[in-house]
Amino acid sequence: MIHVASTTAPVNIATLKYWGKRDAQLNLPTNSSISVTLAQDDLRTLTSAATGPEFEEDKLWLNGQEESLGSERTQNCLGDLRALRRELEIKDGSLPKMSQWKLHIVSENNFPTAAGLASSAAGFAALVMAIAKLYELPQSASEISRIARKGSGSACRSLFGGFVAWEMGEKEDGSDSKAVEVAPMEHWANMKAAVLVVSADKKDTPSTSGMQLTVKTSDLFQERIKNVVPKRFEEMKKSIIEKDFATFAELTMRDSNSFHATCLDSYPPIFYINDTSKKVIKLCHLINEFYGETIVAYTYDAGPNSVLYYLEENEEKLFAFIYKLFSNVEGWENKYSKDQLDSFLAAFEGVKSKVNFELDDEIQNNVSRVILTRVGPGPQDTTECLIDESTGLPK
Amino acid sequence: MIHVASTTAPVNIATLKYWGKRDAQLNLPTNSSISVTLAQDDLRTLTSAATGPEFEEDKLWLNGQEESLGSERTQNCLGDLRALRRELEIKDGSLPKMSQWKLHIVSENNFPTAAGLASSAAGFAALVMAIAKLYELPQSASEISRIARKGSGSACRSLFGGFVAWEMGEKEDGSDSKAVEVAPMEHWANMKAAVLVVSADKKDTPSTSGMQLTVKTSDLFQERIKNVVPKRFEEMKKSIIEKDFATFAELTMRDSNSFHATCLDSYPPIFYINDTSKKVIKLCHLINEFYGETIVAYTYDAGPNSVLYYLEENEEKLFAFIYKLFSNVEGWENKYSKDQLDSFLAAFEGVKSKVNFELDDEIQNNVSRVILTRVGPGPQDTTECLIDESTGLPK
Repeated sequence: MIHVASTTAPVNIATLKYWGKRDAQLNLPTNSSISVTLAQDDLRTLTSAATGPEFEEDKLWLNGQEESLGSERTQNCLGDLRALRRELEIKDGSLPKMSQWKLHIVSENNFPTAAGLASSAAGFAALVMAIAKLYELPQSASEISRIARKGSGSACRSLFGGFVAWEMGEKEDGSDSKAVEVAPMEHWANMKAAVLVVSADKKDTPSTSGMQLTVKTSDLFQERIKNVVPKRFEEMKKSIIEKDFATFAELTMRDSNSFHATCLDSYPPIFYINDTSKKVIKLCHLINEFYGETIVAYTYDAGPNSVLYYLEENEEKLFAFIYKLFSNVEGWENKYSKDQLDSFLAAFEGVKSKVNFELDDEIQNNVSRVILTRVGPGPQDTTECLIDESTGLPK
Repeated sequence: MIHVASTTAPVNIATLKYWGKRDAQLNLPTNSSISVTLAQDDLRTLTSAATGPEFEEDKLWLNGQEESLGSERTQNCLGDLRALRRELEIKDGSLPKMSQWKLHIVSENNFPTAAGLASSAAGFAALVMAIAKLYELPQSASEISRIARKGSGSACRSLFGGFVAWEMGEKEDGSDSKAVEVAPMEHWANMKAAVLVVSADKKDTPSTSGMQLTVKTSDLFQERIKNVVPKRFEEMKKSIIEKDFATFAELTMRDSNSFHATCLDSYPPIFYINDTSKKVIKLCHLINEFYGETIVAYTYDAGPNSVLYYLEENEEKLFAFIYKLFSNVEGWENKYSKDQLDSFLAAFEGVKSKVNFELDDEIQNNVSRVILTRVGPGPQDTTECLIDESTGLPK
């Protein structure tokens, strides 16, 4: 008999960046980090896990393609999950001996992997959660997050919705390096995000090797992890708890810049943001200056995509500029009616005469689409199942 | 009777960057710096200074345009020079009382100011030297460099040829913040430089305000000035004295990256290097990797122009790539014969089959010209004079 469980897991985008491992094997970070979990309508991984005595080997199908489960990181995750299942089986002899059976995993993203949108975080979070559910593990999300962390560091943060901290921990075995909730999505439900997806020419330095290079070669990196981030970590948590957007935004922008500064200070230097990213950064500062208040924050992961955070009540103010500049880019029509889009254009016309900076029409040339989303929940149960329960194979 | 004196002064390009003032009034830096003085055939300022009892006001003509001498910085320079002249006049009553007369200054660059090539350094060095010569001041170049420093910080380094250090000093009055020679040009005469001039869209953040912003807002800047630069300063001087190009090159590249990292870490961030600069940076690392030895170093000032340092004996190896990629750009024909240029193309053909990276043809699109030059001497006496001795006005 085949047992099956399915779950979804969200993408998270760090506002205080994870960059640097103190232990590459266990994915233990050199600093704590903070992220916002994004809604799953737009960005999520759906994973089904199946097991049964008749399965001959562990198998994975990712977006329709069979992939290897053989990487050390994935094996670490599977090993930990099976160990927890074995504890249950030892306590209760009537349970099926799933810990001894092979697994079939089928996983699908609702967004292109190539978009550079932290797909590995959602992927490992969903993988680990689906198996934890299949195994009926009693552990908390924080405890499960330690396992997801071994797959991909930032995956641990996708075990929670809302505003999430990954506490770096101190222990050598990593048992205290786990995600915790700073605040649930309901706490600051008007937090929205717009992702400007940049069409990148080439694959950048992969983040794992990029991190190692920065840790090894950047003269400024130690200052970042020892002094800059620990202080910012406390300040950012406070700004979230107090829903102080101006402070949250400034800390977010500063931390993105600090992270990319240590990349540039690596040797040879690593570049993730490009001239389009820089134009968006400058635009955000001009918009905040124009309104005389902080209504938008940018942040960049290991790639040129801009993630903009803003509050729903400032959407029209922000989109007066963003829709004006990026209206030709895909992604607006599925979220806003024609009337709403017209109102953004009207909002721009309303402020146009006061705009004292040049709007650069070329800014949209390298942007392929915009993803309009918001803060969202953690992994979700789902009745959708990607595995045929009679064969144990992808549907 | 009108007295006239003329001098030239060179451009210098820092290999250890000056970025940050501890005293903006006196141009006292937060760290010591090192530069290479470039030859004057390609890049120099020629300045003539005249004085006479009949002049009614201090006047300056720069590249054919009358400009104000009223800035505080320029006035500081003129005041210091007049004070030194006055000392001489007090000691020797027979000297003409030039310290009481007004000055006419005429200055011309042999390169476009807009190229972003440290023209203010050569400009203030030439201004101060021309007047020092007119006044027949007995002070050493280092002593005169303190005065040039007040005009434009990096100008103090243009008082020497070859390899120059600007010692930051400790005193509040700046009397120990001056340039000294690390080694004369003859010491490492085979040091050459190629400047890739990038056609910049817009004026970047001026360096004075950029520095102030970095000092005030960058969290990583203190680490740079307290720990990174002091160590690098000693190492770079040693590499110059030992003519150790590999070390000199690595320190130069790392310091350029470190400086631009603190710009990016400023808030709001400052961007001087652009996607073209980055392509050149990557190309330099690929070339060094390809040959298995360090044959080229890049460095960037407060703008996107690449300055490449290399040794003459490696020119063909370097230009196999650089001429291949930038052959359509202006600046080769006045320096090399057709045969020499063909030999660079042949050098590329010779290694082509072993090149394991992609040559990006688009790299030259935003480069407007290449300036091919080398290490050069300090300010030079000249018989060329820009002032009509009968009228005291520009010729």
